[in-house]
Amino acid sequence: MAGQKKLVEAITPMEEDFARWYTDIVKKAELMDYSSVRGCMVIEPYGWAIWENIRDLLDKRFKELGHQNVAMPLFIPESLLQKEKDHVEGFAPEVAWVTHGGSEELPERLCVRPTSETLFCDYYARKIQSWRDLPKLYNQWCSVVRWEKTTRPFLRSVEFHWQEGHTMHETAEEAKAETEQMLRVYAELCENELSIPVIKGRKTDKEKFAGAEMTYTIEAMMHDGKALQSGTSHYFGDGFARAFDITFQGRDNSVCYPHQTSWGLSTRIIGGIIMTHGDNDGLVLPPAIAPIQVVIVPVAQHKEGVLEKARELEQRLKKVCRVLVDDSDQSPGWKFAQYEMKGVPIRLEIGPKDIEKDQCVLVRRTDREKSFVSLADLEQAVLDQLEAVRRGMYDTALSRRENMTYTVKTLDEFREVADQKPGFIKAMWCGSPECEEKLKDLAGVSSRCMPFEQEQITETCVCCGQKAKAMVYWGKAY
Amino acid sequence: MAGQKKLVEAITPMEEDFARWYTDIVKKAELMDYSSVRGCMVIEPYGWAIWENIRDLLDKRFKELGHQNVAMPLFIPESLLQKEKDHVEGFAPEVAWVTHGGSEELPERLCVRPTSETLFCDYYARKIQSWRDLPKLYNQWCSVVRWEKTTRPFLRSVEFHWQEGHTMHETAEEAKAETEQMLRVYAELCENELSIPVIKGRKTDKEKFAGAEMTYTIEAMMHDGKALQSGTSHYFGDGFARAFDITFQGRDNSVCYPHQTSWGLSTRIIGGIIMTHGDNDGLVLPPAIAPIQVVIVPVAQHKEGVLEKARELEQRLKKVCRVLVDDSDQSPGWKFAQYEMKGVPIRLEIGPKDIEKDQCVLVRRTDREKSFVSLADLEQAVLDQLEAVRRGMYDTALSRRENMTYTVKTLDEFREVADQKPGFIKAMWCGSPECEEKLKDLAGVSSRCMPFEQEQITETCVCCGQKAKAMVYWGKAY
Repeated sequence: MAGQKKLVEAITPMEEDFARWYTDIVKKAELMDYSSVRGCMVIEPYGWAIWENIRDLLDKRFKELGHQNVAMPLFIPESLLQKEKDHVEGFAPEVAWVTHGGSEELPERLCVRPTSETLFCDYYARKIQSWRDLPKLYNQWCSVVRWEKTTRPFLRSVEFHWQEGHTMHETAEEAKAETEQMLRVYAELCENELSIPVIKGRKTDKEKFAGAEMTYTIEAMMHDGKALQSGTSHYFGDGFARAFDITFQGRDNSVCYPHQTSWGLSTRIIGGIIMTHGDNDGLVLPPAIAPIQVVIVPVAQHKEGVLEKARELEQRLKKVCRVLVDDSDQSPGWKFAQYEMKGVPIRLEIGPKDIEKDQCVLVRRTDREKSFVSLADLEQAVLDQLEAVRRGMYDTALSRRENMTYTVKTLDEFREVADQKPGFIKAMWCGSPECEEKLKDLAGVSSRCMPFEQEQITETCVCCGQKAKAMVYWGKAY
Repeated sequence: MAGQKKLVEAITPMEEDFARWYTDIVKKAELMDYSSVRGCMVIEPYGWAIWENIRDLLDKRFKELGHQNVAMPLFIPESLLQKEKDHVEGFAPEVAWVTHGGSEELPERLCVRPTSETLFCDYYARKIQSWRDLPKLYNQWCSVVRWEKTTRPFLRSVEFHWQEGHTMHETAEEAKAETEQMLRVYAELCENELSIPVIKGRKTDKEKFAGAEMTYTIEAMMHDGKALQSGTSHYFGDGFARAFDITFQGRDNSVCYPHQTSWGLSTRIIGGIIMTHGDNDGLVLPPAIAPIQVVIVPVAQHKEGVLEKARELEQRLKKVCRVLVDDSDQSPGWKFAQYEMKGVPIRLEIGPKDIEKDQCVLVRRTDREKSFVSLADLEQAVLDQLEAVRRGMYDTALSRRENMTYTVKTLDEFREVADQKPGFIKAMWCGSPECEEKLKDLAGVSSRCMPFEQEQITETCVCCGQKAKAMVYWGKAY
């Protein structure tokens, strides 16, 4: 293996420099490239193909639940952004402003959407008159812009791609149920398709979305023990509806305000995939979203019948998975390293000796487990192994998270763990923003969420000793 | 029928006011809504579902031809836009400028992309070193912004959605072949899937894309005889490559400039679908892109077994097409009119008497042809009728275009036809921009294209009498 590695440029080992390891993978697996615009990235074909696969998986789920896709404008007039007070306070400092169209100064500045609650509300106000018009279940796939000072590929950029769901409901109960349902959809996608275990919970008031009454989140743990907020779902109550004067005639003919939600998942999740599954040889992709699920590498491909056999297998496998034969003139060793870098879940090797025995070699990207597969059973063997890879990736990530999660009872313990052990800390909290702030100052961690699955570790807040209201996950975060 | 019509709000007949007829359909079929941002639209679920279907059909074709999707930044720094002289002259007057990020003024203005040649060139410059790196075959689905003064739904708006393909090739021949190939892809989509006959041809220098050496176009004729440019494909030579200093080492080790193309098709085509196929009862959708291909309307749905049967047929048809049962409490007449407005290609009616006879009524949206279909043969009958609708729509549109195309030999004839007969004019042209300008002034028409299928009508230019270089289609255009 060592000899092969030298053939592809090595990446920085994650133990040496985690941040460089990450950007090495992003660049060398050709997921993303920097552009001439500060903080804006080019998502390259391999990276975009991953996003398209995630999009298709989510979009199918949204549509099955009755959501419809729409396209709202890219711009928000300043006066529209300002209608909801908390919202504008949260977003105005980080938006890009369009001030000129051609050579003319605009009568009113337009911001490039940082999120589209205000645009949807503007639309709802025209479309919702009666309880019969509800619910409205919308989603859009688009990019948004937030003027971030420091940026990192996929994790934080000035422009990023996402989907934003926006819904309006007759009652608070329905809206809350939608908020929870969509969080479950995200969690299910992460756990089943992306093999990323997540903690479902509610954000504290300090960490919730600008303008929301309640924010739910799924939090994943990266290789380095840091948290990645991987998807959020917000319940707005009727705050925006009141600010935008959206009313409907209720079943009893009274004038009512509808109840609102929004929920989003972004290309950030690609950063989460890299930092959950990647290793020092490169990317490791969950099969469901891998642009290439199986690569076939011919061995001694100049020998008679090898390329033909490789192509025959490709044709067969095309019916059950995304497969590629690499018949370029690079050495097999170079190809092995190249597709490991690209995170392709399964490699098949086929050479003259294999053909003689009517078999091929199957190697899993995750653990390099090698097996011989009879060609007669190839399709089933590949499908079984893709499923084994999916499960294996989840189990590995879950046990890492479990090993790096610490339950603490006292402030001293809290500080010691935060200081010495990367990972999540579970501790009780009284509910006050002051204690949250203090834990951030003392231990450098933020509250990740109040998990739906609560435990009673102690009866009192780890910080102030007052009566505890909730168990909270704490950690450093991306 | 008259009684039924009154149940849904009537639309303005196209003979009375074509522009109002158009916007009535856009609004009442719920394709698009105006927003609070001048010239930017909300594409509503039904309109966006049409665009998603068009997108999927095209995207499949692009990928089969080896193109890969990417995502370029939304913004272009001013200095980057200015690198290619003709290009910046064409676009700078109509771009939106971002001048502030948060509360800070930017050191350099950014324009919101009006098109992305410059961004792709910036990327190519980093990615192309050797002839082995070519071709680069990229595409992106996105929205772009052009600061138009007067806007119309789908046809011209400040923000619009499209795909833009961008490719780089080793030789001029390859790039030209790509330019032609992608125009053929657009033409095939329009003719086969959208039932819109198009004329393939080349734009005159006056009408070509800013910065291109050559622009190919497909031109369709609308109901009112006006032309709609429905897709374009550009050959750039190495002009941008030189401006952006993109070079590669050729097969003979010399330093070479690559040859470039771009090609785009936008949501404008939805306007083309409306104005090619629509009638005074509303939208008429080509089956391939209709969000609902078949609507089932239960008749006397309160009677026992009717709704159950309707749902049973829906379950069966779901396997072969996009189908919907409308079991709302509106009357069948209201539903008939409603789905005619929405352009659903086929309506099935099923009531107690039909059930007794084991049949249903099938009505085509295009010509209202009504037939009884045995339930045993339903799937095949529906598929046959969808295909008949597709062909019928194309034939109708083609014979209209043929009937409204005039071949003229003299300037007097040209002016008379342009003045009195809506439609296309075929006439010879000497190749000079002066004659083009003069024909615009005299007759109010522009050159649509020099069709690939040339005819020799006369030997001289219809305008100046000099030797003719090409037969040209002329017309008024959207």
